[in-house]
Amino acid sequence: MKTQIEQAREGIITPQMAAVAAEEHVSPEYVCRMVAEGKVVIPWNHVRAPKAVGIGKGLRTKVNASIGTSSDIVDYEAEVRKARAAQESGADTLMELSVGGDLDRVRREVIAAVDLPVGNVPLYQAFCEAARKYGDPNRLDPEMLFDLIERQCADGMAFMAVHCGINLYTIERLRRQGYRYGGLVSKGGVSMVGWMMANGRENPLYEQFDRVVGILKKYDTVLSLGNGLRAGAIHDSSDRAQIQELLINCELAEMGREMGCQMLVEGPGHVPLDEVEGNIQLQKRMSGGAPYYMLGPISTDVAPGFDHITAAIGAAQSSRFGADLICYITPAEHLALPNEEDVRQGVKAARVAAYIGDMNKYPEKGRERDREMSKARRDLDWQRQFELALYPEDARAIRASRTPEDEATCTMCGDFCASRGAGRLFAGDLRGDKV
Amino acid sequence: MKTQIEQAREGIITPQMAAVAAEEHVSPEYVCRMVAEGKVVIPWNHVRAPKAVGIGKGLRTKVNASIGTSSDIVDYEAEVRKARAAQESGADTLMELSVGGDLDRVRREVIAAVDLPVGNVPLYQAFCEAARKYGDPNRLDPEMLFDLIERQCADGMAFMAVHCGINLYTIERLRRQGYRYGGLVSKGGVSMVGWMMANGRENPLYEQFDRVVGILKKYDTVLSLGNGLRAGAIHDSSDRAQIQELLINCELAEMGREMGCQMLVEGPGHVPLDEVEGNIQLQKRMSGGAPYYMLGPISTDVAPGFDHITAAIGAAQSSRFGADLICYITPAEHLALPNEEDVRQGVKAARVAAYIGDMNKYPEKGRERDREMSKARRDLDWQRQFELALYPEDARAIRASRTPEDEATCTMCGDFCASRGAGRLFAGDLRGDKV
Repeated sequence: MKTQIEQAREGIITPQMAAVAAEEHVSPEYVCRMVAEGKVVIPWNHVRAPKAVGIGKGLRTKVNASIGTSSDIVDYEAEVRKARAAQESGADTLMELSVGGDLDRVRREVIAAVDLPVGNVPLYQAFCEAARKYGDPNRLDPEMLFDLIERQCADGMAFMAVHCGINLYTIERLRRQGYRYGGLVSKGGVSMVGWMMANGRENPLYEQFDRVVGILKKYDTVLSLGNGLRAGAIHDSSDRAQIQELLINCELAEMGREMGCQMLVEGPGHVPLDEVEGNIQLQKRMSGGAPYYMLGPISTDVAPGFDHITAAIGAAQSSRFGADLICYITPAEHLALPNEEDVRQGVKAARVAAYIGDMNKYPEKGRERDREMSKARRDLDWQRQFELALYPEDARAIRASRTPEDEATCTMCGDFCASRGAGRLFAGDLRGDKV
Repeated sequence: MKTQIEQAREGIITPQMAAVAAEEHVSPEYVCRMVAEGKVVIPWNHVRAPKAVGIGKGLRTKVNASIGTSSDIVDYEAEVRKARAAQESGADTLMELSVGGDLDRVRREVIAAVDLPVGNVPLYQAFCEAARKYGDPNRLDPEMLFDLIERQCADGMAFMAVHCGINLYTIERLRRQGYRYGGLVSKGGVSMVGWMMANGRENPLYEQFDRVVGILKKYDTVLSLGNGLRAGAIHDSSDRAQIQELLINCELAEMGREMGCQMLVEGPGHVPLDEVEGNIQLQKRMSGGAPYYMLGPISTDVAPGFDHITAAIGAAQSSRFGADLICYITPAEHLALPNEEDVRQGVKAARVAAYIGDMNKYPEKGRERDREMSKARRDLDWQRQFELALYPEDARAIRASRTPEDEATCTMCGDFCASRGAGRLFAGDLRGDKV
């Protein structure tokens, strides 16, 4: 079977492209053209057929939620609850990133619990299994890694973060710059770097990139080029190691696209606000416009406990300047494995940020809802305000917890309601689309 | 007694300037020069002597928390608790904005509960008292208003938001533009506009601006020029009414400064991200560099329940581009009167945002703490991480709620800890200030 990008190049509008077009209020021809050019991807899998979600140019910025066990906390039911919480809270995609317990089981249970596209990171299970089998992750056999990627695709993975871009050349750049302030923070990345250094060998995912592409293509799984050397600290942002890996990932994105595979490029991480726009410009330029999947970014290192907010601040900028898929960050980031409530808070903060980014990415259509909301506020139409709210239930709960004496107003101002007072003074002046 | 700005012009370094200099790690001469030029203000009051806090050029961006009763919810003890919660959470200034109950009582109890500079909005009490006395706020007597301002200053107000900039000319601009999508949202502003329209008279605070200045100068209270026509909706941002009032406020800031009064200019409100920088540039240019006090800004209208986040996203930009004092926004904004927990969440989100803004406003010194934090993370020094966190207690609580098996790591990655693995591989490569 052909992939979305192969079909798009033949001018075929697949049901997935049509579904994305309907959802996004754009034409199917537009989606088809963008998929053909590799500027939009639709995470998919012939085996599983998840919800069709478009990621890329001209489309709403999407939000990913990552869940999964760790070696310390293995609770299969909790992961299923977290997956459902992510979907309920409005995540567009889900990553299942378990490294503890029965990894096949948790992956399959999570996939069964949601209809979102689900992605993962094959290196996690690969190194876990090597460690369990040989007592040493560095004894991982590359053949086993390729078999595992195939097995995971066969379970229905719609996208897969594969660390193809790490190579010996980039590791040399990391050493020459005197390592880093914040070090390496990618679990899969560090494991692969460790394997390469222990075995004195090139990364098999880089050396045999065409083989990775070949497996994913069979399923139409999107290949997301993992950010194994991503900066995990403000002072490492845009360092030479970060940019070297980005450069190689952009090269691989072009190669993979030419081979007929849908390609995503991953980005950091921790980025100060003044470097966000430049980072995205570079990724778009070097990759020929591949969709960009950013982890926020987190915009300061010093606010553990509030990283859903530091990342929302970063994500509003990244989505504004062209990031296409934003990975949420939860309040537990840097501290602990997220629980169900963290997942909800993380998704909501990221969606609010992505919405704000889209107001600037798409200055016309991105602000229509704001205009309606402002009129509903002016006219004290509470029902309409809740309809237009991104999270009506949360808004209703706050208002209901402090019921006003006069249902037209709220307890903030009560009798002193500015909207009501001003409405009486100026209602007759309204003109045009302000009415 | 002379005001801070009058003394600064004579080259006198007051104890307040010295305290600000020590707190901010700048020279007393610098603070004195900035105060003389009107680019830094120190909210003060000879009667009360609050903590000396500097607001303006070259100083850390400050955060204000607003509390106060409404006609629906009057609980004096709760307001005192909210005031203390704001101070504990790191607010730099406090505004007491009650409009319900015994307004003298709540003001005095709140002032007694904190040592922060406390500000207020005299129009609230003025219109409340007129409504109680005459059954009609529009029967407010201007003489009573000036007496009230004096009485409130005598209670120790360190800054006062006075709506001097509203005038008949600006109201005409509002009507000519066909009113607004979101209407007027300033309680004091709407009340004054209503009074002007009912009485067919100019705003006495504008007409007798020198009298307002004269009263505040006596106490060295900062005159904060209120934003009575501020945009309360994304689609009203930078409309002609907003900019007309800003222009007049900037003119008044210059006049007040020349008269020897410390002056602040207030800004919106609701501003889309792409208009934040321009708004601040305009305020700085038109006012001759007066400190700017912004309400966030909130960066979308559609996320009620999450406006501490929409405002944090806006405030990171506004502080980045030059706003000097940020008013917090709580999760209850647009829905209800904030409670104590809302106050804490609002202050914390605003402080995180202001910190991120300062990383960009002051790219060198604003990021030193981030560098130390990234090293502590890399080296798994948890004690140091908590010391460097903006909110150590919140961070500790999350980690403690999910205790890791190995105290060196956390439950996010457990055995798979990237920092530990990478540290072993690259410790020998560290050079320079990365060590």
